[in-house]
Amino acid sequence: MSALPQPDRTEIEISTVLNALADPVRLKIVRALAERTEGISCGTLDLGVGASTLTHHVRTLREAGVVEVTPKGTSRISTLRRADLDALFPGLLDGVLAARR
Amino acid sequence: MSALPQPDRTEIEISTVLNALADPVRLKIVRALAERTEGISCGTLDLGVGASTLTHHVRTLREAGVVEVTPKGTSRISTLRRADLDALFPGLLDGVLAARR
Repeated sequence: MSALPQPDRTEIEISTVLNALADPVRLKIVRALAERTEGISCGTLDLGVGASTLTHHVRTLREAGVVEVTPKGTSRISTLRRADLDALFPGLLDGVLAARR
Repeated sequence: MSALPQPDRTEIEISTVLNALADPVRLKIVRALAERTEGISCGTLDLGVGASTLTHHVRTLREAGVVEVTPKGTSRISTLRRADLDALFPGLLDGVLAARR
């Protein structure tokens, strides 16, 4: 199936991306996705939040342009839009992922 | 005079920094500071906000560990804590500054 609606690369804004990343749960999701090249269903991650909260966080990341979400059967597979983010804000993602706290 | 209270490098947290940067006015302040090695009084910047709003934004940046603020006479001189941010989150600041939108 095709990906859920998301901003084109040219529509992604830095303040929206920073806001999306500025949450501990969403940062955990981004860290988990950054460790894999294939996508994952975020419901399989141990994030300590309920399903509706998780849905909210993934939508925030998708609408900001940080992740792409594609329905696959009953799951939704998320992947990090690393190429887009690295092209627009070179270094940003690496800097965020380097954070120890 | 000595700098206003601020977190030590080891106390700076990524989510607080991202939150501090995720605002258009604060991003303008950071961009302006990044263009200079010496500090500036943020009141001299053309930001389109009132004095109390500006004070709030500068305090948010200071408390997050993004800027250092030092009183000088009746002014407060802000400087970007680039060395601390680059050490903790290498690439983050450059990525943010590279953003066109």
